[in-house]
Amino acid sequence: MTTVENQTALEAFYADVAAAELQPLWTQEGLMPPNPAVAPKAVPHLWRWSTLRPLAERAGELITIDRGGDRRVLSFANPGLGGAPFASPTLWGAVQYLNGGEHAPGHRHTPGAIRFVLEGDGVYTTVNGDACDMHPGDLVLTPSWNWHDHNSATDTPMIWFDGLDMPTVIALDAVFFEPYPIEELQPVEGEHNRSARAYGGAGLLPDGPARAAGTAHSPLLVYRRADTDRALTALLAASSLPMVSVEYVNPVTGKPALPTMGCHMARLVPGGRTVATRHVGSEIWVVHSGTGETVIGGTRFRWGPGDAFVVPSWVPVEHEAHEPADLFRVDDAPVMRALELYREQTLDAPQDVTAEFAAGQAVS
Amino acid sequence: MTTVENQTALEAFYADVAAAELQPLWTQEGLMPPNPAVAPKAVPHLWRWSTLRPLAERAGELITIDRGGDRRVLSFANPGLGGAPFASPTLWGAVQYLNGGEHAPGHRHTPGAIRFVLEGDGVYTTVNGDACDMHPGDLVLTPSWNWHDHNSATDTPMIWFDGLDMPTVIALDAVFFEPYPIEELQPVEGEHNRSARAYGGAGLLPDGPARAAGTAHSPLLVYRRADTDRALTALLAASSLPMVSVEYVNPVTGKPALPTMGCHMARLVPGGRTVATRHVGSEIWVVHSGTGETVIGGTRFRWGPGDAFVVPSWVPVEHEAHEPADLFRVDDAPVMRALELYREQTLDAPQDVTAEFAAGQAVS
Amino acid sequence: MTTVENQTALEAFYADVAAAELQPLWTQEGLMPPNPAVAPKAVPHLWRWSTLRPLAERAGELITIDRGGDRRVLSFANPGLGGAPFASPTLWGAVQYLNGGEHAPGHRHTPGAIRFVLEGDGVYTTVNGDACDMHPGDLVLTPSWNWHDHNSATDTPMIWFDGLDMPTVIALDAVFFEPYPIEELQPVEGEHNRSARAYGGAGLLPDGPARAAGTAHSPLLVYRRADTDRALTALLAASSLPMVSVEYVNPVTGKPALPTMGCHMARLVPGGRTVATRHVGSEIWVVHSGTGETVIGGTRFRWGPGDAFVVPSWVPVEHEAHEPADLFRVDDAPVMRALELYREQTLDAPQDVTAEFAAGQAVS
Amino acid sequence: MTTVENQTALEAFYADVAAAELQPLWTQEGLMPPNPAVAPKAVPHLWRWSTLRPLAERAGELITIDRGGDRRVLSFANPGLGGAPFASPTLWGAVQYLNGGEHAPGHRHTPGAIRFVLEGDGVYTTVNGDACDMHPGDLVLTPSWNWHDHNSATDTPMIWFDGLDMPTVIALDAVFFEPYPIEELQPVEGEHNRSARAYGGAGLLPDGPARAAGTAHSPLLVYRRADTDRALTALLAASSLPMVSVEYVNPVTGKPALPTMGCHMARLVPGGRTVATRHVGSEIWVVHSGTGETVIGGTRFRWGPGDAFVVPSWVPVEHEAHEPADLFRVDDAPVMRALELYREQTLDAPQDVTAEFAAGQAVS
Repeated sequence: MTTVENQTALEAFYADVAAAELQPLWTQEGLMPPNPAVAPKAVPHLWRWSTLRPLAERAGELITIDRGGDRRVLSFANPGLGGAPFASPTLWGAVQYLNGGEHAPGHRHTPGAIRFVLEGDGVYTTVNGDACDMHPGDLVLTPSWNWHDHNSATDTPMIWFDGLDMPTVIALDAVFFEPYPIEELQPVEGEHNRSARAYGGAGLLPDGPARAAGTAHSPLLVYRRADTDRALTALLAASSLPMVSVEYVNPVTGKPALPTMGCHMARLVPGGRTVATRHVGSEIWVVHSGTGETVIGGTRFRWGPGDAFVVPSWVPVEHEAHEPADLFRVDDAPVMRALELYREQTLDAPQDVTAEFAAGQAVS
Repeated sequence: MTTVENQTALEAFYADVAAAELQPLWTQEGLMPPNPAVAPKAVPHLWRWSTLRPLAERAGELITIDRGGDRRVLSFANPGLGGAPFASPTLWGAVQYLNGGEHAPGHRHTPGAIRFVLEGDGVYTTVNGDACDMHPGDLVLTPSWNWHDHNSATDTPMIWFDGLDMPTVIALDAVFFEPYPIEELQPVEGEHNRSARAYGGAGLLPDGPARAAGTAHSPLLVYRRADTDRALTALLAASSLPMVSVEYVNPVTGKPALPTMGCHMARLVPGGRTVATRHVGSEIWVVHSGTGETVIGGTRFRWGPGDAFVVPSWVPVEHEAHEPADLFRVDDAPVMRALELYREQTLDAPQDVTAEFAAGQAVS
Repeated sequence: MTTVENQTALEAFYADVAAAELQPLWTQEGLMPPNPAVAPKAVPHLWRWSTLRPLAERAGELITIDRGGDRRVLSFANPGLGGAPFASPTLWGAVQYLNGGEHAPGHRHTPGAIRFVLEGDGVYTTVNGDACDMHPGDLVLTPSWNWHDHNSATDTPMIWFDGLDMPTVIALDAVFFEPYPIEELQPVEGEHNRSARAYGGAGLLPDGPARAAGTAHSPLLVYRRADTDRALTALLAASSLPMVSVEYVNPVTGKPALPTMGCHMARLVPGGRTVATRHVGSEIWVVHSGTGETVIGGTRFRWGPGDAFVVPSWVPVEHEAHEPADLFRVDDAPVMRALELYREQTLDAPQDVTAEFAAGQAVS
Repeated sequence: MTTVENQTALEAFYADVAAAELQPLWTQEGLMPPNPAVAPKAVPHLWRWSTLRPLAERAGELITIDRGGDRRVLSFANPGLGGAPFASPTLWGAVQYLNGGEHAPGHRHTPGAIRFVLEGDGVYTTVNGDACDMHPGDLVLTPSWNWHDHNSATDTPMIWFDGLDMPTVIALDAVFFEPYPIEELQPVEGEHNRSARAYGGAGLLPDGPARAAGTAHSPLLVYRRADTDRALTALLAASSLPMVSVEYVNPVTGKPALPTMGCHMARLVPGGRTVATRHVGSEIWVVHSGTGETVIGGTRFRWGPGDAFVVPSWVPVEHEAHEPADLFRVDDAPVMRALELYREQTLDAPQDVTAEFAAGQAVS
């Protein structure tokens, strides 16, 4: 609260301040709210597979992939973000659709990306010359500034989830983008899935130049569904909690697979609800299998395979499975931790469920 | 470039996409430009001391500091940022003015701040109970989530530069803010400048609990002008370059004083221009003493004591002193490095100077 | 070279020095030789499987395992170490023999140990409650200060190689030892091979307390032969060198499995010799399969399955396979690197082979 | 305990084992004692200044420094170490004496060294070209493999304490030694004390190549007595304990000044005794000023200026000042911590003082 003695002088002052490309701090409302959930720029939201899939299919019929247009992608636009094509202030989420025989041309960009396969088979993503085969439930990394293109070697379409740190990299004014030079596709070096073979043993790292190269991101570019399944089975056997999860990491450092995004796979079992917690940073969850519900900020979101939902920063969340369920999650926790902004809180009691998320009707 | 076979189907498709809170990637222009300087969201700009000082003084006459209004601050609003009160997409810059005998009340926030003293004396900033005396050329840290208030123990006003990572923390949806409870001012624990005494020896760290506490940010909260002067003198003596600089670091780790902002003091000597370079991330420079010029993206900015200018991401920059000059700099390099987004480039040739910055006339 | 003016005074002086528990530096020869290979305290040596196996078998007949005697172990005594039971100044190497149905009782010690299985099956080593099954070619860790016992659940004997950092820990005066209290065997918690299940996926780490526990050593306690085989096959396919190798690491950090010992598995293929190199620190190699030769300091050592040889510090070494061969190696490189003592050198030319190692005749 | 059925077979067996360069584990007593203090290889001991100084002086008269003989050093020979010239299993301690006008010629070695000045002035130690002036109470580093020589630029003698990690580096078989080529003395580059000027500001690091060089050890090579004095005064003012201390660290990392040795300066004030503790690893304490006593393993050691005493691994220790006292300490804690061997324990009660250290009578 400020007091003013002379209104005329004040108006002249404000005019001079503005002319000088300055702004008074004391006239700015809400610059620093008590916490991120008070004046949220993003809302909890769920995109249904029953909506996403037909729309992606229609895009596959209507939109061709040419040089320049690059990718057939429908991005999640959080209703709270004023029309921006972002799932949260820090994360891009989308579905990408590739028809049989198509090729999404090569390019690279400083935003890093992950691909989590939802449906179909027969596509490989080439990352700096390493062709990574994609199957449902697999995770493929296309790290910052790595050349990448997507190629269908079959005649049926494929859909996957794209997660990018693009909103973060845009906010930090650090975006670089480059189309692949001359040829449309990178040459594939050697057999497919080189990284998976070189880094395919738990606790085993190659000696010599292969390891010494030392990339910031994970040199392991593809993580197989069978491996997360096996790891989750083992964790669940040793746990009495309703949820266990694994993180996809850089095997050379044990750190998150990408410096800007955390990737996890969680397994939920019926018979309990996770403790209500909230934390700084946002998350996109993608249902791989099973059904259940998640309460986010008092609203219940029921979900099934292929559905995706976003949990904004500092909004309470609880999960419960109706049948055994595996959910993939991408989050911005590595950013929050690197910048010492991470905090989390366990709530004293479960949330009251005061609303039911009813959007996302299937389109005709 | 995408081609469309059926305009009607396409329109229906786009309507359904929008209704589903989705957005096509292929209709979005400029989401990922080739580099940050192609479609800059911030422009090079300079705020003149001859403008800043009288405006701050008028604010001192017109605006009182009361609970709620908190701070008498004029923030740098980069003309390229559409009215946002930010010097760059990642950095807040401002001048703060405190009249003799005034107290700016206590609060804490997750954005971290640094204070670089421009003029005056007799103020101390209390940071979590440690009263840090402020003199011209000193740097004081008020790290993330540390209680802090500013107190004048004299009868003359004081002006300092404020640098904050606030735009970054807002973009990441990680702002927390809390006013100091009950009392207006924190109690000062012990004598003033405790941190400076405990961590005041180069290469000496306290043993035991004092060090073990292990804060993310620097436990040394105030850095004296005499120390940077001495260090720069030593570096210059051993250098043949037109510029040398030191970084203010956390003495316990050698890392940047704050996880989100780098602080440096540079000394320029006449007789040469620094090599033209550009790098990812933005910087605010504040002239402590001396005169010279800086060419940013082809525009020449002449500067003298108290002037402040901003260098946006990936815009070329060269510095040249007209007389020996010391410049303080705050930047976002720790963020870029932590997220593996940092890159820099030395240009082959000096920039052509194609414009002269002429704004910033003194106000009446 | 020191000169002395007065012999009588000097003698009195030396007597007084000795009486004061002091020693003149200048009278000590060879305290600091030019390099570790000039005055080696260890020599290259090979222990033949044709010797080791029958002796271990005889020990199995003659020696019983009782409380106190603890382990049926024959340790490698490097002929250059004056009777010390150490393979090198830093490493303990040995063969351990367990008859069917036997139990080697529980204890723990600060020296860390690794077990590489040579022959037999049906034994499990319980490490802090986790029963790790052992098969030929597997590596099992019993890290510093972890309770461990070995148990045969079959009726046939088993032999494995033991590698310990014991000489290092003794030299550093840091040995602690404790027999398991009361009961002879630790209870096994849950199913066998818990760690292998929890950390069994390459690039996958458990979330939550399981990982947060954060041990210094690897939480993965057993590494399977099939995994090293697969990784080496992949590396070899991408290499044109006569040798490739993998390191067994802590999957949570990517660092060596133990802080004091590095473990590697190398694959050699006929048709070439590795480049001659030398490095600071010693190594014990154990042949898993195949045949070949290694030239160490000019002496040729021919080897086959089960043979073990030691390479002392800074002695040149070259390997060559006669048929495809897999060799396990344990070394002290993590110590040398942690203390900044590591250095390595590639020699300009292959060594002249000036001797043939002829020891190790089979015992009757 | 092992039982034997057949004595003859056993004897034959043992003979064959020995012939095969093997040793049975079960016949080796005391290989792994319960803890380092049970079968100590080093004993607590004190070397008196009243002994050291006259002996050093006599050495100064009797022994000349020539090429080859290199250094006039009297090393502390721990009575428990069987004649080895080591103060503890891991540490070398000694006094070095340089007459006015003398030069101790240049060399380098992988063991790292520290010099703590006891008496005299006018000597500088040149470390890789940087001449470091030495005054009483200063610490000078001559890190691993750095060229160094000692030079008297005055006409009076000087004595300092030498601390080296030599026993550790010898035990690890990692010693390299090289005399300085051709000339006896390195050229001094620029003014004296370059490192102290470049790194002389607390929390300030040079930008650019100076810092990027990135040595393992501290680039700050000399630490001044005035700085430790000031830091200890500040710590004591904020403490109610009988002892405070500071560590000499690498200002670029905050880690110990050398990777193998920790250096500390402690200040003790009368009126209390430190809590009895013990920890893994050994220490040499050197009294800079003041008097007091230290109880080590139940024996009381009274000390005054210039005295030096050793605390072996895992032996309880308590300190008490009779008048305000500053004590320098060098220890092996960085080694123990790097190899995860460090542990410490606070004892429940003060030790019973059962003996008085009475050795170290002044020599005639």
